[in-house]
Amino acid sequence: MQTYLSRIAQLQNQVESSDVDAVVVSPGPDLLYLTGYDAIPLERLTALVVRKGAAPFLVSPLLERAAAAASPFGSLNLEIRTWTETESPYQLIASELADIEKFAVDGRMWAEKLIRMQQAISGAKAVSATPLISQLRMRKTQSEVEALREAGAAIDWVHSQVADLLKPGRTEAEVGADIAKLIRDSGHSTVDFVIVGSGPNSASPHHELSDRVIRMNEPIVVDLGGTMPSGYCSDSTRTYFVGTPDAEYLERYEILLDAQQLATAAVQPGIPCEEIDAVARRHMTANGIGELFIHRIGHGIGMETHEDPYMVAGNSLPLELGFAFSIEPGFYEDGKAGARIEDIVVCGEAGAIVLNNRPRELHVIN
Amino acid sequence: MQTYLSRIAQLQNQVESSDVDAVVVSPGPDLLYLTGYDAIPLERLTALVVRKGAAPFLVSPLLERAAAAASPFGSLNLEIRTWTETESPYQLIASELADIEKFAVDGRMWAEKLIRMQQAISGAKAVSATPLISQLRMRKTQSEVEALREAGAAIDWVHSQVADLLKPGRTEAEVGADIAKLIRDSGHSTVDFVIVGSGPNSASPHHELSDRVIRMNEPIVVDLGGTMPSGYCSDSTRTYFVGTPDAEYLERYEILLDAQQLATAAVQPGIPCEEIDAVARRHMTANGIGELFIHRIGHGIGMETHEDPYMVAGNSLPLELGFAFSIEPGFYEDGKAGARIEDIVVCGEAGAIVLNNRPRELHVIN
Repeated sequence: MQTYLSRIAQLQNQVESSDVDAVVVSPGPDLLYLTGYDAIPLERLTALVVRKGAAPFLVSPLLERAAAAASPFGSLNLEIRTWTETESPYQLIASELADIEKFAVDGRMWAEKLIRMQQAISGAKAVSATPLISQLRMRKTQSEVEALREAGAAIDWVHSQVADLLKPGRTEAEVGADIAKLIRDSGHSTVDFVIVGSGPNSASPHHELSDRVIRMNEPIVVDLGGTMPSGYCSDSTRTYFVGTPDAEYLERYEILLDAQQLATAAVQPGIPCEEIDAVARRHMTANGIGELFIHRIGHGIGMETHEDPYMVAGNSLPLELGFAFSIEPGFYEDGKAGARIEDIVVCGEAGAIVLNNRPRELHVIN
Repeated sequence: MQTYLSRIAQLQNQVESSDVDAVVVSPGPDLLYLTGYDAIPLERLTALVVRKGAAPFLVSPLLERAAAAASPFGSLNLEIRTWTETESPYQLIASELADIEKFAVDGRMWAEKLIRMQQAISGAKAVSATPLISQLRMRKTQSEVEALREAGAAIDWVHSQVADLLKPGRTEAEVGADIAKLIRDSGHSTVDFVIVGSGPNSASPHHELSDRVIRMNEPIVVDLGGTMPSGYCSDSTRTYFVGTPDAEYLERYEILLDAQQLATAAVQPGIPCEEIDAVARRHMTANGIGELFIHRIGHGIGMETHEDPYMVAGNSLPLELGFAFSIEPGFYEDGKAGARIEDIVVCGEAGAIVLNNRPRELHVIN
């Protein structure tokens, strides 16, 4: 409980020193992080309200009150204000937040809820609470790093068995179903995504699964992730090759692998996020494949697969101890072939702490 | 493909005759319904834009373009406008929607996306697109009813095996894990929720699972749902009792069962949604347990578990052929015991077509 009380207190402090009068947090990763309440996102409004100069409270539908009280939130000794099926939770919030100028909402609140809140608190400006809440969520504590390490080990275990599933004649969807089962068997509580991109599909970074049949002599990008019972996520990519790669593909893969390792080696406190991307991009550009690297190099990870901080051109935020993020350069030749290598790393005092440790070399299956 | 083209054309017609200049639909059930594109909801903006007097188009991150084109959307012959990692999709949309007065967004768009869109299209008012899109989604076609029927049969099959799992000494969480496996085995592609509320937890309508051990002589509310490969959802509740119920509980259960059957019998085209709720509530109130029925009687269901129309006081919308919704009255005595009976029904010409058909009587396990 101390963890949640401390997080809420930190957010309260941020509100006191910001130009935001109140933060409203609906069910989702922010609410789970702040209160331990893993509320189902539904159309009825549940929300934590953190106001300037007053105690936080939870707005809850009457029929969810018992569930809220049974969650870790129930031990925080904070007020729960319920509303019944014919009352408006937006009016309830508006009456508490009268005369405010600016309120912030969690980034994943449903638009229909934000719109109703804007109508109820008319005259106030709505902004995203992500900049405030990310200040907390980005800096992983030791126990959060351990949770991410456990997630990393679980997805590594899945990758250790993927090569045996990749046989010419099987479809991506068949392989994907086997992998989803392995992700659950590895201890994840949910399967968040299974990307098996074979042949030309390897050149589509967010291809998922299709009925395409795997053939000889083609690459397969396998990008996997799930959420552990701890609430923390895994995300790791390895590239496999069935048969014999040609010289050009092998040469490009070596450049990619070096770029991934250079970016990992660049991690240390104080380095701007965008520099991690730039290190890899410079190496790939100098070696002729910069134009094939069509996405940023990475994203933060924690209770969401993608969260702050993003490793992308334009983000000059300096890395801090405890920042956790992916390093995943790739090359993609549209309609032909692609490759990607992805590890989750944490920024430590002596550089990157790497949480995925399967071999990064092209895994050739003969 | 004809289905999606027809749905988009209907939405376009609605936009032409409304005071909304454009509708912006991000990944989620609305986008899936309109285009067949089951895009992963991510922080990068993907959105279908339907404007007054011009052809619809899809905004897509460059790295998702191939995935969008490989989805059913790719066969609709509509334009895909891509943006790269250092460009702004909000500026892209704003430049197309210059000088508009009002735009609508899908109800489940992430707030941070709506806020950025409001900043980019400054001066225009944002409203929810749910009233427009629900006009389409509420009226299920024959093939959608068949998909819901298939989902209903699958969850009925799960309920047919639940009684064998409910043994004194087992925890709700243990039973819940077994049920989750059955939901997957029954053909659902995802497990959306598993509520096993035993003893006093049966009085918390949205209790999920806990480590509470099931004891003799107590009720267990089991409310289950998942999504089928078709994209359509199941949702059904039955109440079980381990041991011997006392006379008061049995009497209340009979009142509840009659209320549920009266509400089902009231379904016919033209009846206001709120009347379905009122029929059951009047019966329960007349028999002394109206105050224990603390939630509305039902919600629409389709590609979302909860969607329009809601069967709740204040909703005077008349039922139409093809409306699909739950009928799920319950009674809840806080801290003691509760019960709920839930079926999904479709409004047909001759009244309710009931899609869940397991016995509704209290299932006593001795």
